[in-house]
Amino acid sequence: MKQTILPQERAPDASHLIWSERMACTFSLNKMHAFLEGSFGDAIHTLRLMQQIERDPILQVKSNYYEMSREEHRKITAEKIARLAQFMEEDSPNFQVFQDRLNLIAMIDPQLGTRVGVHLGLFLSAIRGNGTQEQFDYWAFQRGAILMKDVYGCFSMTEIAHGSNVAELETLAEYDIEKKVFRITTPHIGATKWWIGGAAHSATHTVVFARLIVKKRDYGVKTFVVPLRDVNHNLYPGVSIGDIGEKMGRDGIDNGWIQFSNVKIPREYMLCKFCKVDEDGNVEEPPLEQLAYGALLGGRVTMVTDSFRTGERFITIALRYSVGRRQFTVKGKSFENQLINYPLHQRRLLPYLAWVYGMSVASYQIQRDHKAVLNGLEEGVRSGDIKVITNAIEQLKGLFADSASLKSTCTWLTADLIDEARQSCGGHGYSAYSGFGKGYADHVVQCTWEGDNNILAQNSGRITIQKVLQMLKNGKVGGTNYQFLYDAKREGAILERLEDYKDLKKLNLAIKSIILRISLNAIDKLNSNGKNWDLIANDKLSLSKLYAAEYILDKWISRIDEVEDENVAQQLKNLAVLFAISNIDKFGLEFLKFKVVLDHDILEKAQTEFLQIVRKDVIPLTDSFKLSDFFINSVLGGYNGDIYNEYLETVKSMDPYNNGKPPYATEFLAMLNRGGVEEREKFQKSPEVLAKLCGSNDDDD
Amino acid sequence: MKQTILPQERAPDASHLIWSERMACTFSLNKMHAFLEGSFGDAIHTLRLMQQIERDPILQVKSNYYEMSREEHRKITAEKIARLAQFMEEDSPNFQVFQDRLNLIAMIDPQLGTRVGVHLGLFLSAIRGNGTQEQFDYWAFQRGAILMKDVYGCFSMTEIAHGSNVAELETLAEYDIEKKVFRITTPHIGATKWWIGGAAHSATHTVVFARLIVKKRDYGVKTFVVPLRDVNHNLYPGVSIGDIGEKMGRDGIDNGWIQFSNVKIPREYMLCKFCKVDEDGNVEEPPLEQLAYGALLGGRVTMVTDSFRTGERFITIALRYSVGRRQFTVKGKSFENQLINYPLHQRRLLPYLAWVYGMSVASYQIQRDHKAVLNGLEEGVRSGDIKVITNAIEQLKGLFADSASLKSTCTWLTADLIDEARQSCGGHGYSAYSGFGKGYADHVVQCTWEGDNNILAQNSGRITIQKVLQMLKNGKVGGTNYQFLYDAKREGAILERLEDYKDLKKLNLAIKSIILRISLNAIDKLNSNGKNWDLIANDKLSLSKLYAAEYILDKWISRIDEVEDENVAQQLKNLAVLFAISNIDKFGLEFLKFKVVLDHDILEKAQTEFLQIVRKDVIPLTDSFKLSDFFINSVLGGYNGDIYNEYLETVKSMDPYNNGKPPYATEFLAMLNRGGVEEREKFQKSPEVLAKLCGSNDDDD
Repeated sequence: MKQTILPQERAPDASHLIWSERMACTFSLNKMHAFLEGSFGDAIHTLRLMQQIERDPILQVKSNYYEMSREEHRKITAEKIARLAQFMEEDSPNFQVFQDRLNLIAMIDPQLGTRVGVHLGLFLSAIRGNGTQEQFDYWAFQRGAILMKDVYGCFSMTEIAHGSNVAELETLAEYDIEKKVFRITTPHIGATKWWIGGAAHSATHTVVFARLIVKKRDYGVKTFVVPLRDVNHNLYPGVSIGDIGEKMGRDGIDNGWIQFSNVKIPREYMLCKFCKVDEDGNVEEPPLEQLAYGALLGGRVTMVTDSFRTGERFITIALRYSVGRRQFTVKGKSFENQLINYPLHQRRLLPYLAWVYGMSVASYQIQRDHKAVLNGLEEGVRSGDIKVITNAIEQLKGLFADSASLKSTCTWLTADLIDEARQSCGGHGYSAYSGFGKGYADHVVQCTWEGDNNILAQNSGRITIQKVLQMLKNGKVGGTNYQFLYDAKREGAILERLEDYKDLKKLNLAIKSIILRISLNAIDKLNSNGKNWDLIANDKLSLSKLYAAEYILDKWISRIDEVEDENVAQQLKNLAVLFAISNIDKFGLEFLKFKVVLDHDILEKAQTEFLQIVRKDVIPLTDSFKLSDFFINSVLGGYNGDIYNEYLETVKSMDPYNNGKPPYATEFLAMLNRGGVEEREKFQKSPEVLAKLCGSNDDDD
Repeated sequence: MKQTILPQERAPDASHLIWSERMACTFSLNKMHAFLEGSFGDAIHTLRLMQQIERDPILQVKSNYYEMSREEHRKITAEKIARLAQFMEEDSPNFQVFQDRLNLIAMIDPQLGTRVGVHLGLFLSAIRGNGTQEQFDYWAFQRGAILMKDVYGCFSMTEIAHGSNVAELETLAEYDIEKKVFRITTPHIGATKWWIGGAAHSATHTVVFARLIVKKRDYGVKTFVVPLRDVNHNLYPGVSIGDIGEKMGRDGIDNGWIQFSNVKIPREYMLCKFCKVDEDGNVEEPPLEQLAYGALLGGRVTMVTDSFRTGERFITIALRYSVGRRQFTVKGKSFENQLINYPLHQRRLLPYLAWVYGMSVASYQIQRDHKAVLNGLEEGVRSGDIKVITNAIEQLKGLFADSASLKSTCTWLTADLIDEARQSCGGHGYSAYSGFGKGYADHVVQCTWEGDNNILAQNSGRITIQKVLQMLKNGKVGGTNYQFLYDAKREGAILERLEDYKDLKKLNLAIKSIILRISLNAIDKLNSNGKNWDLIANDKLSLSKLYAAEYILDKWISRIDEVEDENVAQQLKNLAVLFAISNIDKFGLEFLKFKVVLDHDILEKAQTEFLQIVRKDVIPLTDSFKLSDFFINSVLGGYNGDIYNEYLETVKSMDPYNNGKPPYATEFLAMLNRGGVEEREKFQKSPEVLAKLCGSNDDDD
């Protein structure tokens, strides 16, 4: 029993809490933002693009975005595409600006990003990658596809029974020597093209992945441009298309299925940069088939950036809420404690904050590498110089390995981040207007498409082990990003004292070291299991995730060295240390097993210490992302932190009925006010009736 | 280049694969099903109820369930409630049958389960738990609430600014001595009742949790029945209610917010089994306040059963798909390999299969315990015997501890299960018709409501540590389910040789042992950190999860001993071993750190071995759940395994347009066929126009 405190004195003070922490900021948000975006110039470029998106009347995304039907999402996304086509004309010929614009849009409206991305990043990239210059010029420029005019493309790779195993796709492209055409056919249901974004409603053309069959010989999977719809948007004969319907998320994308029944296309529609079929059916095989898939790595690279942007958005929401929300009273205080002050809450969220910073480093680096690779390839093909081409292919292989590890690790991490962030907001995280629900549903497909994460991780892990095998055999390792294996071998790293956990270089070396030791252990297993790589799948998975951590930490340390402002550099160091420690903790079993960590309790101490350090600046560290409320689009994460009022006002404005009495209330009342069972069945089980029914028997008794 | 295989010869053969494995079953599905349900009698009871649900025209759930709007879900859920009211009249007075029915419905239509559950399990349970017999009789029987007649209730506990901290709720119930009424008031926005299921559209009455204020003294939170809507379903004056709108899932539930502005209720509407206020404002304080919350533990107990049922459903879908789906060719085979044959795929899914079996054991046991506790409490209150009451309270405390650990662990585990199952189905898992998307969105709220999982886990972990402290102090431990601490202390367990991992008793002892060692380590930390329990939050979290594993394994071993059929018992043993090993693996760091596991590579070997053993029977082990296609409701998980045809037919039947030409295609075509920029802006930037505009300047040059 206690004295009444006037409840008005205890009304929520979330804004006040957030603003107090904001005012106490000790470093430059502008400088931090410049670090996150790469440079001051990039930072301003990003902000200007955001401003343009935010102000555009057609590109709006608000609370109602969270409750639209599939039909509404489809339609509004198409309208936005038309709007983007105009921005594109503005940006042209600098398509990088448009790509940057699209990446920002993907943060708040991922389905729009994808629907355009399929046309530009998959359909056109496939033509660029697999077609000749003339072919690309025709479809992209003469027809206008590059500006989303006349031709709108989709990308028919996956089939209902084949996703990851592209080499075994079963759609057929049979060359008809007499008619000089390819006949495209779906031989059975398993080869039905499936998940084809843009196919259901939009695409006029598609690039089809199909087996080239000439004179009954199977030359494997090649690519062909196939028109789907005529100028009136009617399907061509032989082309059957349908909507694959509702999905977990991204319902604005019109994913479809396609079946081809003897569809004829001119021989010239085969994309023939590498593989050619002449009129008489002579096939010239590709000299460097690997190059054909190079242009498609762009999708994986973009997903690292996507993960960074999505991570920025959702960690901001959760951290602002954690500062503004109070829960449970601490001894001796009259107000409840802020959520973020609880060590468990810090441990749940702050490693993700560190990861978001880490993903900015990853995004920055891999975007640069990707551009270099594309330039190298273009240069090589143009010059025809075998040395330039070989070099470009080596770079491409490096990018393949890096993107396999980073795409899978970052998209998984971001899925976990959204989920943990949502749970950390308690019940309110379950409101659609918090943004988490659709955010999660929209994001998680990234773990599956354009390379299933598990398969990519297996690829990455296998490459690491092969590099170690190489080192054991030749004493040499190929690939810039694997040189760390030497360091690991030379030095070996032991984390022993508390100080070791504050030393970024030591932490980094520890991660390099564990990668080497897990690989060596996996090689032992391979030697004793008859080289069955499937039996070391779990090691490969761990190696891929650790490779991503190593990649990020390595680049991060270099980037910090370039930061001149000491306060900013210090913040970045703290985050990098937390990043390293939490990754080491995640693989604590391996670190202990291979004795790279000697006493896990010391790691625990270090982690607690850095959680408390980072906790102090969670508001400025998320303000540094410079996301406006438009880009946050969450009732829980607004800049001013006026959580409860914003939330109540939003649900009021979205409520279709006032007075809490929907049309169906009448039927509900009918149930509540229904009469008794006896009455409803006209007393047909009453003793009187039953007696009547058995009257004769009664007499017998 | 290879010879063409006629593609028809390679058409998908998923049904064939599933049926082959089904035909090879070596144990009795009926006996396994009886184990899962508790007994043969229970198994038949369950099947009969399922049949009745499945055949009912109103209770149908099909593919269209995955694409309904909120409005449609709300309306159809209300219609189903009306239907259930009729089933209830049939079941009455055996409400256990109705509860069983509701638990089964919750598997496929969780929003319906909740919407009824709020009225029966929260509103009426609160009246039963906190009200006198007269109060319960009036609202439940005289008014008809027990049969969903006349009165439909909701449960106004949580507020927008208060969820877990019930003791600090801020809604006021001020006693007005003059008028002999309570005045219910929401003093500020933070005290707005929020998330109240049934409030937005349905409830006529609510139980309000509010601070009892008498003569300016605050007696803490008590419960009051407050009428919300009159017989015409209009809100009473002073009652403001709205819809809190769209959620991540369960949109069929009309969650609402409520603000009370000086709403008067008769003094007699206070629920006064424990705390009474007489006419003159004299307050009789509750002697055993703990009892007030006892009736609400039912929700947590039900969620263990829910997790089991939901787990059954989704692991079946993923495993059937993993048997029917082929991916990548293995050396020397002409067909691609089945997904489930990959060790990584086994490792991703089979521990969850073991968990589902484990959760059946947990559900069976805790349902029994719960009934015993409720009977004990009722008996105690009726008899007034302090010894009976004290004993009942001890039992209640035990149930509180068990349910805290099991509710949090099982609901989290099931969320992870659904997510991993979805990812394991690749892209198709992202289709709404696979069931995973809505299944996940509907399920995850269980991790948050009726006790946030993190907070429950903290409670459970703290209790374990306190028991260990007790043991250290007195050499004695209270509570049936903590007696294992003696065993752990007495024996200590080391897993050393491969054989140790095949011995259920040793595995069980290892888990008991790690619980003791983590607790002892946590106590050391407490002693050195000034008894700050928040700093050992992570230990408490681990302890809670391990407690659940220990609880399950312990009961599971006893249950296996009762199984007479050797084949069935052997299957159950294999699953239990896998359950134990995978849990030990999950906490591998701790087991290694405290040297309960000596060599983690041996654990790995054992795990691989048992994954391969369990893999053989995945079809019969999921068939044993006896879920019809109606209860599966997934295009990927049908009994006959005809995945691709079923999937294609479903999307065709759901497609609103044929010919892939939606109404909005016209606008989309307008974009594609738009003219050039110059034309659209009437050539206003052409050199000719620009020359005209600067004609005078030209002259100047």
